[in-house]
Amino acid sequence: MRKTLYQHVLDLLDERHVDLTRMAQIAYEGQIAYEPDITLEKCKQAILHVIKKREVQNVILTGIVVDKMVDQGLIPDEYLAKILKEDSWQYQVDELLSTGCVEVFGGVASSNRGYLDKTKPGIIGEVDGRTDSCNVFLDDILAAIISSAESYIANKYPQGVYKEMEGTL
Amino acid sequence: MRKTLYQHVLDLLDERHVDLTRMAQIAYEGQIAYEPDITLEKCKQAILHVIKKREVQNVILTGIVVDKMVDQGLIPDEYLAKILKEDSWQYQVDELLSTGCVEVFGGVASSNRGYLDKTKPGIIGEVDGRTDSCNVFLDDILAAIISSAESYIANKYPQGVYKEMEGTL
Amino acid sequence: MRKTLYQHVLDLLDERHVDLTRMAQIAYEGQIAYEPDITLEKCKQAILHVIKKREVQNVILTGIVVDKMVDQGLIPDEYLAKILKEDSWQYQVDELLSTGCVEVFGGVASSNRGYLDKTKPGIIGEVDGRTDSCNVFLDDILAAIISSAESYIANKYPQGVYKEMEGTL
Amino acid sequence: MRKTLYQHVLDLLDERHVDLTRMAQIAYEGQIAYEPDITLEKCKQAILHVIKKREVQNVILTGIVVDKMVDQGLIPDEYLAKILKEDSWQYQVDELLSTGCVEVFGGVASSNRGYLDKTKPGIIGEVDGRTDSCNVFLDDILAAIISSAESYIANKYPQGVYKEMEGTL
Repeated sequence: MRKTLYQHVLDLLDERHVDLTRMAQIAYEGQIAYEPDITLEKCKQAILHVIKKREVQNVILTGIVVDKMVDQGLIPDEYLAKILKEDSWQYQVDELLSTGCVEVFGGVASSNRGYLDKTKPGIIGEVDGRTDSCNVFLDDILAAIISSAESYIANKYPQGVYKEMEGTL
Repeated sequence: MRKTLYQHVLDLLDERHVDLTRMAQIAYEGQIAYEPDITLEKCKQAILHVIKKREVQNVILTGIVVDKMVDQGLIPDEYLAKILKEDSWQYQVDELLSTGCVEVFGGVASSNRGYLDKTKPGIIGEVDGRTDSCNVFLDDILAAIISSAESYIANKYPQGVYKEMEGTL
Repeated sequence: MRKTLYQHVLDLLDERHVDLTRMAQIAYEGQIAYEPDITLEKCKQAILHVIKKREVQNVILTGIVVDKMVDQGLIPDEYLAKILKEDSWQYQVDELLSTGCVEVFGGVASSNRGYLDKTKPGIIGEVDGRTDSCNVFLDDILAAIISSAESYIANKYPQGVYKEMEGTL
Repeated sequence: MRKTLYQHVLDLLDERHVDLTRMAQIAYEGQIAYEPDITLEKCKQAILHVIKKREVQNVILTGIVVDKMVDQGLIPDEYLAKILKEDSWQYQVDELLSTGCVEVFGGVASSNRGYLDKTKPGIIGEVDGRTDSCNVFLDDILAAIISSAESYIANKYPQGVYKEMEGTL
């Protein structure tokens, strides 16, 4: 391979017009109330930290390649092709994949992922609303990465009672 | 035992001032946009259907009993007592329990649970805000039951492409 | 569609030489110690009950179609094609999909799935060992369906203390 | 607090006669076939690495404190007390807690946890078989920690196709 899998999934995200700064923006807005010191740049670093995980790369790779195959009419099964083209919410395999990579980042990621999946702010809603390409997996993957980044930021330091219990007081 | 476990957890919910109709109200508001035929009564039946599951009863039982023990000062471990009294979000065992009983009801329940956990509408927010009793587990349990009821309603009938594929067309 | 999605996934399993009776055999061997009344026929009915769930059909459909595309050289991404051809255990998306459909059947299914995934008895090991076709997803899917069927059988009736608590005593 | 939460859960494990070296022994036996360079000492370090996670400490703390309350007759609810005393497998809250802390360590941990939960080697089986104390949660927690340590060891370095894709070739 000419480049790493990490670089390859960054290229795939770029090819699907996903701007990492717009992802960081959502994480920033989600965390600013809890972490006044957070910056957009720190959120972008957190997004990249999440994408560095092999589990996350595998999910991004699989989801975007399947989305692209739908666009190109390459899904050879009539049933699967139809389900993916319609982006039916009863398919839910997109959700299985994205909840899967969220679990690596702990419980807060799960609640935030659900919230982002329902409210679809910023780039998530934009991807979900695209009519020129199939994005069954991509919007769920973005919600998963962003919520994982939020969880990474939020869990980095002990808070409240845990400050004392983790010996940082 | 003088009564079934099902009746016992209904009594525990009542003892903690949880009105099932107020739970049904949240499910109703969550589903009315997708299911115009839904009624508050159907939502209440869905809530009861969820509580009839043994997995859900076990989680309600365990969560409320621990909450009550905190109220009564019965937690014999200084660390656990302190964490529960502070209701620290970094504890997350409450979330593990509630996501666990949601999984039985499929992927949609997971997103809805996250959404309810973040936005805390109606009775969920009221329970979360109580200062006269410990409710570490109860608010998460309510979000789990309500989102499971929503998922039960939403998944009952095939929609879109699945109507044709499940032979109902 | 000429047939239901349910019939389609049964056909896909058959096309991949998966005999439902051999799946039932593994469930039978897993449960006979706990349920002396169990029969091979009841286990086969439990397998079919699991496959009737839409969540499970979606996972079978997606997994087998991707496996077949690898066989036919249809995966258009060099990285994903290579990972799937090698059936690397570090891919783990196959495991995400299969744990996902197990969750619908409760906690026992999860332990049994892990056990079947490690020990690979009968048809699971046979599928895993095939060298004439790609079966990245299929062995995990079989472990998921069989463990779900076991959980369905095991949880059907209350046992021990739950007999009394569920009013069946 | 006089000591950190980390030290407190280590003390709780010790109080329940759990020897970390015996836990490491199970991880060693599980991984030696895949990682010829592994040593018992490295496995013990991996066990400690897992226990250093806040998510894991919260689960150990909660599970052992509840187990101890059962021993001391401190569970104030008749139903929960009875279920815990009988250690019914249909309770499954013990499994929810332990699968929860396993998810932080990725997909392999889940399969290994299921395998350890079914086969109960070494200290896990010993804890499960104790008749002088309640250990509803402890055996599941040990299976969770050990499988997480195995996953941590196994995922540390890319293998097969991932070696090339992660730029280590």
